[in-house]
Amino acid sequence: MTHARAQIWEGGQDFRQVDLQLPELAEGELLVQLTTATICGSDRHTVSGRRSGACPSILGHEGVGEVIASRREGITVGQRVVFSVTSTCGKCDYCRRGLSAKCTSVLKAGHESAESAWPLSGTYATHIHILAGQAVAVVPSTIPDAVASTAGCAVATVMATLEQAGDLCGRSVLVTGAGMLGMIALAAVRAGGASHIIASDLNPRNLELVTGLADELVAPGGAHQVDVALEFSGAASAVTECLASLNIGGTAVLAGTVAPVGEIALDPEWLVRGWRTVTGVHNYEPHHLTEAVAFLESEGERIPWDAVLGGPLTLEELPAAFAEVPTTPRVVLDLR
Amino acid sequence: MTHARAQIWEGGQDFRQVDLQLPELAEGELLVQLTTATICGSDRHTVSGRRSGACPSILGHEGVGEVIASRREGITVGQRVVFSVTSTCGKCDYCRRGLSAKCTSVLKAGHESAESAWPLSGTYATHIHILAGQAVAVVPSTIPDAVASTAGCAVATVMATLEQAGDLCGRSVLVTGAGMLGMIALAAVRAGGASHIIASDLNPRNLELVTGLADELVAPGGAHQVDVALEFSGAASAVTECLASLNIGGTAVLAGTVAPVGEIALDPEWLVRGWRTVTGVHNYEPHHLTEAVAFLESEGERIPWDAVLGGPLTLEELPAAFAEVPTTPRVVLDLR
Repeated sequence: MTHARAQIWEGGQDFRQVDLQLPELAEGELLVQLTTATICGSDRHTVSGRRSGACPSILGHEGVGEVIASRREGITVGQRVVFSVTSTCGKCDYCRRGLSAKCTSVLKAGHESAESAWPLSGTYATHIHILAGQAVAVVPSTIPDAVASTAGCAVATVMATLEQAGDLCGRSVLVTGAGMLGMIALAAVRAGGASHIIASDLNPRNLELVTGLADELVAPGGAHQVDVALEFSGAASAVTECLASLNIGGTAVLAGTVAPVGEIALDPEWLVRGWRTVTGVHNYEPHHLTEAVAFLESEGERIPWDAVLGGPLTLEELPAAFAEVPTTPRVVLDLR
Repeated sequence: MTHARAQIWEGGQDFRQVDLQLPELAEGELLVQLTTATICGSDRHTVSGRRSGACPSILGHEGVGEVIASRREGITVGQRVVFSVTSTCGKCDYCRRGLSAKCTSVLKAGHESAESAWPLSGTYATHIHILAGQAVAVVPSTIPDAVASTAGCAVATVMATLEQAGDLCGRSVLVTGAGMLGMIALAAVRAGGASHIIASDLNPRNLELVTGLADELVAPGGAHQVDVALEFSGAASAVTECLASLNIGGTAVLAGTVAPVGEIALDPEWLVRGWRTVTGVHNYEPHHLTEAVAFLESEGERIPWDAVLGGPLTLEELPAAFAEVPTTPRVVLDLR
């Protein structure tokens, strides 16, 4: 095989299927033949124009596949892997501080121009070119392809969020936004031994999907009494809900507001007298990808995957997937 | 000796000197003959009416003295000790979580009514009755009395603040409010290996005192580029200054805003995309008192104590100390 087949996003709702030559690998790089990709909501934002993205480009940053060529020590042909969204330098100040997501020369899978030096960066293709700066994790055979595909974005981001939240054992937890990330967080919070779990979402269908994962399902806007609040909805009102719900000593971890939502009000006395913490998480670090795979292996069955995963569609059907409002948190692409 | 001499605060600027019977000690309790107390700014707020306080009461929560009776294992008569502001139950949910400052049955030195079961709770007296729930730390002889006296409030609170800030080695740090706590923080930040230290204060005299402790002295209101911001001034504008100054991955620890200051604006996207953290600290935990004494022993010489400590005054002169605007961060009471 000398070429990959890929859907190139050309702006708006326009995609074009092309064949692209497979790359020569440099030291540390991998070539992965993708079996499955999943469509993350952020790509929908890019296609709808709510988020800017390199164009033309191969979108898609969640995927899983088999290594068919390796120049990386410890990774061999035939292994089934997932990979991190970010490719980082490992040398800059941010990388050295463990904030590699903010690497000064970061590149991101599914975010780079098809005309750049890394055209095969996305997962809406039969192959992905993994750079030396990308973390990979080998996937145990017990994890189905479509489930494993979510590790590289949704699950790893949740792992980063939970790290900021600290020990959840015996804690009460509010999760705002019960989409893909919120659902994974609810499952992880339960696995972490939380004493009481509240899920908040505007969308009754989202709440229905997480019925088995939360002790309480609520519409947004209330104030609860929790030790930890995890925000995935991206709404300013949900941030306010998280803050209004924090017990003394509580921590709110915000992960959803990756786009401008205006400002919210913060009372410094409330923060100080209550030993409260508000913190943000964006993307994740390499160890979170490993944790994501371990979580899917040990706790993945908590998630109602049948209801989560739509499709599968073929690569040819990708444009249709973006033309429709999805009825499931993830739509699966079968790339075999 | 059967009685302690104490200044009882009777509201407003009124104090009355009285003799109070020394207590019978219960299990775990101590009787300490105070040699020195220092006047914390929060007592000035109580006396000026800006902060409510039990009345009548013996104020004063910074002090040092000699144990003259002990029913606590490991603490013996003759030891020189400082003690924590809070007396905590050790059993409630907050205590078990390491948030004993928020203990549901907390009592506080220098904050309890003279008519309560703990009349000898304050340091504006010749003796203080230390409860079983109060931490104590033995003070090495190398630390002068007036310096040691600041451990129990100012220095221990700074230790709690620094714990929230994390590792400071190689980090740039902004300290807003260069009064007693800010000054100690600046010295501790330097000792912690910070790469660049900025002190911000409205009061040029405060800045002058910390000239040797900071790389940059600034008037409030700017935006700097720092990894860590520590807020001790208590002003909402300083909180905004701290937030506006935070680099990616940065942490702001607020300790000053213990009174209402209104609300400030927080941009959730800025927090999330920048992996930033805003956290509050109020009072401290028992281990911070031990750390405070260790800090004063190893790094105390960084602080210009001659300029920090005013007085000494006698117990009889205490009312005069509250009638005047202090010209130093601390006024010392000599209680011998």
